[in-house]
Amino acid sequence: MKARLSDNYDEKENEEEKVSCEEIADEIRNIGTEEELHEYLEEHHDVDIAESFEEFEDDEDILRILNALDYEEKANVIEEADEKIQKKIVEILPEDEVIEIFSHMSPDDIVDILGYINFQKRKSLLDSMKRSDANKLRELLGYETDSAGGIMTTQFIAFKKNLKMKDILEKIKIIGPKTEYIETIFVLDENGALMGEADLRDILCSSDDTLLSEITEENFKYVNPKDDQEEVALLVSKYSLKVVPVVSDKMALMGIITIDDVVDVIQEEHTEDMLKLAGTGDDEDIYTSLYESTKKRLPWLLINLLTAFLASFTVGLFQNTIDKVVALAVTMPIVSGMGGNAGTQALAVTIRSIALGEYDGNDNLEISIKYIVLGFINGLLIGIVCALIISLAFQNIYLGVVILLSMIGNCIIACLVGYLIPIGLQAMNIDPAMASAVILTTVTDVCGFFLFLGLATMFITKL
Amino acid sequence: MKARLSDNYDEKENEEEKVSCEEIADEIRNIGTEEELHEYLEEHHDVDIAESFEEFEDDEDILRILNALDYEEKANVIEEADEKIQKKIVEILPEDEVIEIFSHMSPDDIVDILGYINFQKRKSLLDSMKRSDANKLRELLGYETDSAGGIMTTQFIAFKKNLKMKDILEKIKIIGPKTEYIETIFVLDENGALMGEADLRDILCSSDDTLLSEITEENFKYVNPKDDQEEVALLVSKYSLKVVPVVSDKMALMGIITIDDVVDVIQEEHTEDMLKLAGTGDDEDIYTSLYESTKKRLPWLLINLLTAFLASFTVGLFQNTIDKVVALAVTMPIVSGMGGNAGTQALAVTIRSIALGEYDGNDNLEISIKYIVLGFINGLLIGIVCALIISLAFQNIYLGVVILLSMIGNCIIACLVGYLIPIGLQAMNIDPAMASAVILTTVTDVCGFFLFLGLATMFITKL
Repeated sequence: MKARLSDNYDEKENEEEKVSCEEIADEIRNIGTEEELHEYLEEHHDVDIAESFEEFEDDEDILRILNALDYEEKANVIEEADEKIQKKIVEILPEDEVIEIFSHMSPDDIVDILGYINFQKRKSLLDSMKRSDANKLRELLGYETDSAGGIMTTQFIAFKKNLKMKDILEKIKIIGPKTEYIETIFVLDENGALMGEADLRDILCSSDDTLLSEITEENFKYVNPKDDQEEVALLVSKYSLKVVPVVSDKMALMGIITIDDVVDVIQEEHTEDMLKLAGTGDDEDIYTSLYESTKKRLPWLLINLLTAFLASFTVGLFQNTIDKVVALAVTMPIVSGMGGNAGTQALAVTIRSIALGEYDGNDNLEISIKYIVLGFINGLLIGIVCALIISLAFQNIYLGVVILLSMIGNCIIACLVGYLIPIGLQAMNIDPAMASAVILTTVTDVCGFFLFLGLATMFITKL
Repeated sequence: MKARLSDNYDEKENEEEKVSCEEIADEIRNIGTEEELHEYLEEHHDVDIAESFEEFEDDEDILRILNALDYEEKANVIEEADEKIQKKIVEILPEDEVIEIFSHMSPDDIVDILGYINFQKRKSLLDSMKRSDANKLRELLGYETDSAGGIMTTQFIAFKKNLKMKDILEKIKIIGPKTEYIETIFVLDENGALMGEADLRDILCSSDDTLLSEITEENFKYVNPKDDQEEVALLVSKYSLKVVPVVSDKMALMGIITIDDVVDVIQEEHTEDMLKLAGTGDDEDIYTSLYESTKKRLPWLLINLLTAFLASFTVGLFQNTIDKVVALAVTMPIVSGMGGNAGTQALAVTIRSIALGEYDGNDNLEISIKYIVLGFINGLLIGIVCALIISLAFQNIYLGVVILLSMIGNCIIACLVGYLIPIGLQAMNIDPAMASAVILTTVTDVCGFFLFLGLATMFITKL
């Protein structure tokens, strides 16, 4: 993708986008002087430098790069690094240097790093910090990493509602550089409870004596620190929010979540859904090591094996029938396979609707009926095509009838079950993406074989 | 989700989050006077009002709501409405009112609406607008809807680099209210080409006589209007950008894309991938009508039917073998099914890696070898478990050996093919999510049956 994006700008000098992290690492290794190194790093984006860290085997190389940066730059690069690299850096740097770097980071990023390192190191770092900072971090560490509290930052700007614009601009000038997000100013009432939000744009465009309360939007969205990050992401994307405040039950402002953190959450949750549906670990990619890939995939395959035996057992019930008409063995995978496909369609649509927050728990009966009808129509149409071909191929119209009837039955079951499994798992508070696929294929295989071979047994004299 | 989010705030007055769009629609129907209606609408979020439009069958109801809003509010609500509703509103409102509403919308939103309505209406609307506005819209209409040009907005703030802070703040005060995004100011060189970005925060915190060029960040990311929206989304999420400028080949600033538009792109692309993988239309949800669902799913099932016949045909090749040993018909679904599962894992991981921009086209051989080994290990372990059970159940060790060998073979093929199909489709510029699943199950079914029944035929005297 990098190559594609930069193709268009061949004539420009700004060529850094073409460079992969391997190349950055190579170039860094070849740079002799401190000064040249500093200049080279200045020209590259924090994210790219952070990625190049993964190419260095030797800790000395990483230390050399970090030494060429000032504390602010160190903080920016480390924030973007992979968690393994972050952990390593915190281990190899002296403790006082880590604390100095932390002072240039936002609390949510520090908490992420503290979460990876071992307990002893974390405690010792927290003990060496300013007490107020450490307490704030300890509070954040208490939230689940996938909750609103776990992804929020405590660096926000909040003012009492009776402040005037000119005072506010003065204050922003001072605290602005230290906060992560200044585009929205949070407004507190006389008791210190969050009562609304004010847009920096409105502050800039108002006269000096305007009161903050005059430009405050009191109709705003907020979340609780215990809310799941996925719910926060849905809220932010539905209402196109750029920032969402995190408040206690009593409306005390505890932190904010900005939209760029939400983008990471959305990417993460989507990846999880898709990989879980296929039955593999939620963080595998094509570069994952052989050992890790095996460990992530094998347990799921073993579960699948057990359910595959259920299908096999169903076929076994009808051994006598198959023994008499071998054409049944030839045609039976069609019925079970088509049921699996029809069910997977229903499954994907349902899981997506749940994940996007479109499913509201009402209309279950209505949707179920729709899916039964849908299964009937699809089964009928596919069944007719299939029955015609099979009847001609085996010169037996009854075999076609058996295929048609079992196809209709299995498609109805597939569509209905493909809808009901994720809904049911959701109701039991189990992630619907996790076990749905394996339950579905088991049901469609077992029902497919049972319907087909059962009907065949009834018609056995005609086959 | 709405219910969950608001559960925590039962004691708060801010109860609007609990209300579904059906309830909003009901309440609106029951409101008598204009004034009450206006008040009610004020209290609700644009997104919720826009959603409630879908509940009204009668155009009169929608007109009544719109009449209770001023032009600015109308624009905000219409922006959030579903495309069908947007189309309807543009049709039922008088043309001059539509143009007045458009003047409160950003160009990218207007272009979206113009894209839905019929050609005659679009032409007539454009002809009635101010020529400069119409030309800007015509230019935007020329871009593909899924390109950077198609999602960008032309409302940005750009200043020449030699301006001073005090002048800039004066200008922002005037043009701020009319632009979509003021947090980043774009900086142009003496030729008018984009040379960098300046943060509003730095502008606010600098002294009055500072030059814009002094606080300009010249190392920035940008995209071309022809770039695909998915690439833009990857760039924004990788570098945590809040806004990305869209520039011509000669670095003329043509528009900007803000992160909230990127969130929509990410949601859309992820949904597409997952639903395509399952073989259904990319915009189906559980509330899609029966007719639409049938239309979206049936073609895919028919394609699957054809490939199911390939599997059936493979089994047919070995009719004689099955006729002699009926246990083969009982056990053969296990081999093909497990291959399908193992392949789906490889497929999902690969498609995800491609979609997240992690796959860079290198190391194909290395990854292929890893997947062959992975298939071997998984096949060996599952095969042993399976062979033991089958050997005991049918009291025949040779049947177990046949299962073991064919399981290993099919798992190797499944892992390799699950990786190579999406990579190959991607190389041919076909969306890898689209056809991968159907090709994969065909390959694993055919190979599974062929290996199992072929090996069984070789060992037929021992079975």
